[in-house]
Amino acid sequence: MQPRQRLIGVIGAAACDAAVAARAYEVGRRLAEAGCAVVCGGLGGVMAAASRGAAEAGGLVIGLLPGDDPHAANPYVTVAIPTGLGEARNAVIALASEALIAIAGGWGTLSEIALARKRGKPVVSLDSWRPDDSVLCATSPRHAVELALATVR
Amino acid sequence: MQPRQRLIGVIGAAACDAAVAARAYEVGRRLAEAGCAVVCGGLGGVMAAASRGAAEAGGLVIGLLPGDDPHAANPYVTVAIPTGLGEARNAVIALASEALIAIAGGWGTLSEIALARKRGKPVVSLDSWRPDDSVLCATSPRHAVELALATVR
Amino acid sequence: MQPRQRLIGVIGAAACDAAVAARAYEVGRRLAEAGCAVVCGGLGGVMAAASRGAAEAGGLVIGLLPGDDPHAANPYVTVAIPTGLGEARNAVIALASEALIAIAGGWGTLSEIALARKRGKPVVSLDSWRPDDSVLCATSPRHAVELALATVR
Amino acid sequence: MQPRQRLIGVIGAAACDAAVAARAYEVGRRLAEAGCAVVCGGLGGVMAAASRGAAEAGGLVIGLLPGDDPHAANPYVTVAIPTGLGEARNAVIALASEALIAIAGGWGTLSEIALARKRGKPVVSLDSWRPDDSVLCATSPRHAVELALATVR
Repeated sequence: MQPRQRLIGVIGAAACDAAVAARAYEVGRRLAEAGCAVVCGGLGGVMAAASRGAAEAGGLVIGLLPGDDPHAANPYVTVAIPTGLGEARNAVIALASEALIAIAGGWGTLSEIALARKRGKPVVSLDSWRPDDSVLCATSPRHAVELALATVR
Repeated sequence: MQPRQRLIGVIGAAACDAAVAARAYEVGRRLAEAGCAVVCGGLGGVMAAASRGAAEAGGLVIGLLPGDDPHAANPYVTVAIPTGLGEARNAVIALASEALIAIAGGWGTLSEIALARKRGKPVVSLDSWRPDDSVLCATSPRHAVELALATVR
Repeated sequence: MQPRQRLIGVIGAAACDAAVAARAYEVGRRLAEAGCAVVCGGLGGVMAAASRGAAEAGGLVIGLLPGDDPHAANPYVTVAIPTGLGEARNAVIALASEALIAIAGGWGTLSEIALARKRGKPVVSLDSWRPDDSVLCATSPRHAVELALATVR
Repeated sequence: MQPRQRLIGVIGAAACDAAVAARAYEVGRRLAEAGCAVVCGGLGGVMAAASRGAAEAGGLVIGLLPGDDPHAANPYVTVAIPTGLGEARNAVIALASEALIAIAGGWGTLSEIALARKRGKPVVSLDSWRPDDSVLCATSPRHAVELALATVR
């Protein structure tokens, strides 16, 4: 029997440049290597890069999609959940994650950070929003994963 | 037949001091006097003060509650909608409002600002979060209402 | 100050024939005459007919739309709330209503009946689904409104 | 890299007798043996029995919980997703599943059947609700799984 998965959220925009994608990939890979599953919004950009990193390291990737089409998920998502909830699914991503790592990102990412902090979830920012000091600040993908895992042990 | 109501969101924390409540009251009153209905989270603090201001000026107050009990609404809500969605109802508040006025507030308020901006909705900050320059800055309740109404005409 | 509105749900399909629409119109009108606001899905068919009946009698009509565009509401909705939740908004309609009247209808209507009964809400069926005897059976629009109002007094 | 999981919903009440639990267990086991992941509400009764069957056969079990506490999941859930959406999560279960098997069950189960049929998802009834002939009728757990898998190939 498979053990209960530990779920860490990786959040960020649906479009990003190559440097940001590389960091998201490394975050996903390191989370999978640490035995965690990645929860994300299931789409492109930061989400796709983190999904790929996790999936290529053999990890599970849960994609909570805003729309109703599972085929909208990026190809590295292993469990595609079309929620049909639109942006309200951001609240589900925040709740489903033990801790979250935000990488760059726009308004959707900020909403997820706020929804997570509202519930007291640890959030690590890697070149992302940092509305107050309770959001931890990481200097590298490795550091981001270390900080996130330290909060949930 | 009653005309379609114009809905302006008023967002802020469920607990606040008397000075903040006075500003929220005035925002609610001015919105009702301008013929707008107030959309809010239906609970206490900023929400209750804005609700009272709008209701006492004869306006309609829509309370989108996070829980499933309509009796959790503050007494000034005229339409109490228990959504049962928890914090995911913040996304509904953002979508239902043509424009939003944020008054002080914590993580829940920040999530609503971000969800509204994600959808391109105008947001006015009155002593609240202002994550970037696209969030308008008001210096008084009167100014906040003027800015909000100017965006939706 | 306006009093707290009593909310009665009227549910049914987004397309219907003239005979069903006439019954939905009468249900909406009688609810408004009894001082209740109508909660519905805000679209066409049964929803539009009930909305028109209520609005023309001076009542308030709350339209909880599945999509994110308030302009999708039928013209008789006085408070258009685009939820962006898709079919998950059916759960909000069930929770927001003190009692519900189902008129004809398809799968969406059945889901609303079931979600309402799950929460112990009274449901009246007027030529609609009646999954078990706890769903009240009405023989006319007048009878449906009488049954619904009797359950919530 | 793990392949995209095929998700089949198993729905039914949070409390059930031993005979129903045995059938749910077998459905879960057979789905896992066929290489499918089980999506369910994550709680007790039919959900727990199906989860156990799937998990003991090495399968993945996605529990979409109504509340906000992941620890409310039954011990056989491998991916616990607290949605915080209340009964609105039933719409997510319906959307996330390629096909659904309903086992006994009450109003919540009926709402999920209706929400699934609304979206054209195949539903198999094993001693459960069968609102119309489009819901397939199974005579055994083995038959239920065969019918469900036949619809999604």
